[in-house]
Amino acid sequence: MPKNNSKPLMVYNSLTDKKEEFTPINKGNVGMYVCGPTVYSESHIGNLRTFVVFDLIIRFLKSQGYKVRYIRNITDVGHLEDDGEDRIAKKAKLENVEPMEIATRYTNDFKEQLRQLNCLHPDIEPLASGHIVEQIQSIEKIIAKGYAYEAKGSVYFDIDKFRKSYTYGKLSNRNIDDLISNTRELKSQKDKKNSFDFALWKKADSKHIMKWSSPWGDGFPGWHLECTTMSQKYLGENFDIHGGGMDLKFPHHDCEIAQSEAIYGNQPANYWIHTNMLTSNKKKMSKSTGNILLLTDLINDGYFANAIRLFLLSAHYRSVLDFNKKALDDANSLASRFFDTYHNLNIIDIELKSNELNDVNNKKPQISRKELENIDVDCKNALLDDFNTPKFISELIKLSKTIDKIVNKKLNINKGNLEYLNEIFMKHLDILGFDLLDQYMLYSQLERESKFGLQFSMEKSGELLDIIEKIRSKARAIADYDTSDFIRDELSKLGYEIQDKD
Amino acid sequence: MPKNNSKPLMVYNSLTDKKEEFTPINKGNVGMYVCGPTVYSESHIGNLRTFVVFDLIIRFLKSQGYKVRYIRNITDVGHLEDDGEDRIAKKAKLENVEPMEIATRYTNDFKEQLRQLNCLHPDIEPLASGHIVEQIQSIEKIIAKGYAYEAKGSVYFDIDKFRKSYTYGKLSNRNIDDLISNTRELKSQKDKKNSFDFALWKKADSKHIMKWSSPWGDGFPGWHLECTTMSQKYLGENFDIHGGGMDLKFPHHDCEIAQSEAIYGNQPANYWIHTNMLTSNKKKMSKSTGNILLLTDLINDGYFANAIRLFLLSAHYRSVLDFNKKALDDANSLASRFFDTYHNLNIIDIELKSNELNDVNNKKPQISRKELENIDVDCKNALLDDFNTPKFISELIKLSKTIDKIVNKKLNINKGNLEYLNEIFMKHLDILGFDLLDQYMLYSQLERESKFGLQFSMEKSGELLDIIEKIRSKARAIADYDTSDFIRDELSKLGYEIQDKD
Repeated sequence: MPKNNSKPLMVYNSLTDKKEEFTPINKGNVGMYVCGPTVYSESHIGNLRTFVVFDLIIRFLKSQGYKVRYIRNITDVGHLEDDGEDRIAKKAKLENVEPMEIATRYTNDFKEQLRQLNCLHPDIEPLASGHIVEQIQSIEKIIAKGYAYEAKGSVYFDIDKFRKSYTYGKLSNRNIDDLISNTRELKSQKDKKNSFDFALWKKADSKHIMKWSSPWGDGFPGWHLECTTMSQKYLGENFDIHGGGMDLKFPHHDCEIAQSEAIYGNQPANYWIHTNMLTSNKKKMSKSTGNILLLTDLINDGYFANAIRLFLLSAHYRSVLDFNKKALDDANSLASRFFDTYHNLNIIDIELKSNELNDVNNKKPQISRKELENIDVDCKNALLDDFNTPKFISELIKLSKTIDKIVNKKLNINKGNLEYLNEIFMKHLDILGFDLLDQYMLYSQLERESKFGLQFSMEKSGELLDIIEKIRSKARAIADYDTSDFIRDELSKLGYEIQDKD
Repeated sequence: MPKNNSKPLMVYNSLTDKKEEFTPINKGNVGMYVCGPTVYSESHIGNLRTFVVFDLIIRFLKSQGYKVRYIRNITDVGHLEDDGEDRIAKKAKLENVEPMEIATRYTNDFKEQLRQLNCLHPDIEPLASGHIVEQIQSIEKIIAKGYAYEAKGSVYFDIDKFRKSYTYGKLSNRNIDDLISNTRELKSQKDKKNSFDFALWKKADSKHIMKWSSPWGDGFPGWHLECTTMSQKYLGENFDIHGGGMDLKFPHHDCEIAQSEAIYGNQPANYWIHTNMLTSNKKKMSKSTGNILLLTDLINDGYFANAIRLFLLSAHYRSVLDFNKKALDDANSLASRFFDTYHNLNIIDIELKSNELNDVNNKKPQISRKELENIDVDCKNALLDDFNTPKFISELIKLSKTIDKIVNKKLNINKGNLEYLNEIFMKHLDILGFDLLDQYMLYSQLERESKFGLQFSMEKSGELLDIIEKIRSKARAIADYDTSDFIRDELSKLGYEIQDKD
């Protein structure tokens, strides 16, 4: 009997620290905002993990019939270093170029990496620098509600005032009193009422390039403000899902919540989803430890983009994922397995048409519709349970092994069920974001290399055909028609048609 | 004797209608602004021609040692239809989505097409919607100088006033008095002093989504304003080159000039470069005639992206280019030729190492350093003469034919000269924007298909190796070592090493 098909989608909500049933605000629609990168350096695969996870979530939601509006921002101004300098402006100064050139370079780089990892484009990808008017309006609203104050051309969020009506830090569950008493007094913060107040608008000095005029003089917006402003511009005051890396919970997302509550009286998103970090050989990936891994390095080492994607999805998004060579090699083998399965389905289809598999008199068991339905439901249920990708992938491996049995003639399948099996497999490959084209490019090469004991570096069909043609000419010249016919037949199986001139 | 290597770069300046020597404002640096697309529909190859031309110009300028800052905007708001509606807002209303979703979709689509055509990214790619503050400041400056007026929440440029001090329409050389007397009175223009005044800021009604607050109330900027504002933000009041399609001369570029003169007293760019249009079978490419050609259609028809790029550069940028199947087929053959030449250079290198070409006792002529220098200079001179791409391509064909002669052993070359020849060829392929990888993907397939009389659809090296291995096993089984050795030797030439287990 097919398993119950109507399980609800359960999502772990970071705000309540509980798995909750997902109920969208507008039936059938999902509004989702994910914090994108600050574009001042190349993203490493730890950063990319977050975006691949949300790509899978979006693909799954779409497969469940939801219409998704996915917004992911680009932070091209306002993200400050600990020394109070804007990250992009600092890099621009180092390289002696316009800050916007730095932002453009790393935005392009980021998008190219996600393209290689087969991530769908967001529906809108707003820039912080592109929403200055809107951010000024947000600040004016916060000031009007009494939760912000101007100080020497900058505007700060007033945490003390805010805490009289709301809770600050509800997402990170930090002990805010402790935090406040431990906050360091930075040089750039001397105009604040309290050291833990955060900037909504920063005054820019005359040398600063990235600045705009505002009611408080020339300056630029604070980092937290852009996400509040842009998410609500494109998704409304209250939307369904807000996502990002776990490290953004505090202060970034807690500040977003505070800003929204200050403006609208409510926190912005019903569900907060946070992805955990990627370690490398059990150590946190960071520039200081020098263990940063870039996508390009892995691709240059010969890994499929598919394999890297599979690896990034191989742990549940709320768990730490550790990068090591074995894990990536395993993902590479798995990518090959899935590609083989795709080919096997084509082989089964061809064989079925020639009735090789469909001999009703043979004694092999026949796979049933119900068994297939169960496989389909198992895959789906894995993702309905808080997007459990390791479980989902293991169900896909089971599916792949079932297909192995059919191609190895240990199981029979009829035409209608084969169509359904094909549909299930392709649907789930698509949710996984598996790129058949990416795999095809490298596959034949690597696969043959290992199987054939040969060393080669590129596809050489033409040259190989030349050799085969020479052998065949020789054979025909000495009337060895066994060999020449053998060659003709073998080539014909591959779709090559030999046209003898004589 | 080598030709004179120090010709100046000559550029046809649309502003003076003369070919002029190019002198940058800051020695060694070029600031260049090109009007990008309005992102409300898919770009056709007529649109893409402009961007491929400027990509070649940038590649050439860089090859000449210039540091180029290349700015190309994205118009995502403010480009009005004749009925006064914003193009993007209109499309969004039709599809019932957020206008910014339309802009995002077609921006991604545009960038993906240019990626396929191997165009370099601009250094900055600013959005009109991302520069509202700056545009409002531009308007305030124009009002302060007395060349603009507010009317019911909109702001218009005052042409009559402007014409008292400056010439309006100097780029298009239109008879402005005639034009003014013929301007239609549109419904949306009834607040203007004169029908030919153009909008700097348009009041938006309450239903309008893409609007921002301003000193004149909620509204959005006029189309012409963004280019004045963004070019000068990133390149300064006065920069080197302003480019775009010829259809932008009037009103767009003449309005830009007027705005700059109103603000700064000077027109913005020293050199204006305009690309001519692409026709299809001698007819203008337009949606109404239904002869729009999309890049994806041509790629799906089996043309190399390289071939399409070569085709787009096959006429001088100031000439009309006519699309027809023969022209594209010719470009496809040419792309194959250049790819062959690239391979031939490798063959020559291998042969030279084994001294096959370098037999001093043979009677073949030796190519000299001076001949090579002349080839190099001829290629360069073609582009120094107002980026004459058809001449440049014909020089490259000559170069390719010279390389043919060497590989066909009708000409000798020594090692030093071969290195230089290789450098010349690769440098010019790069200026051309030829993508060796793109070609590689399809090349072996199509090439073999025609040469070998075989029909096949994909690379099958592995399968072919399997066949060869079977033949060799059979041969070895019957002690036919002639055949098995022949196969081993032939495979070895291709870099395949057979490891017999016995």
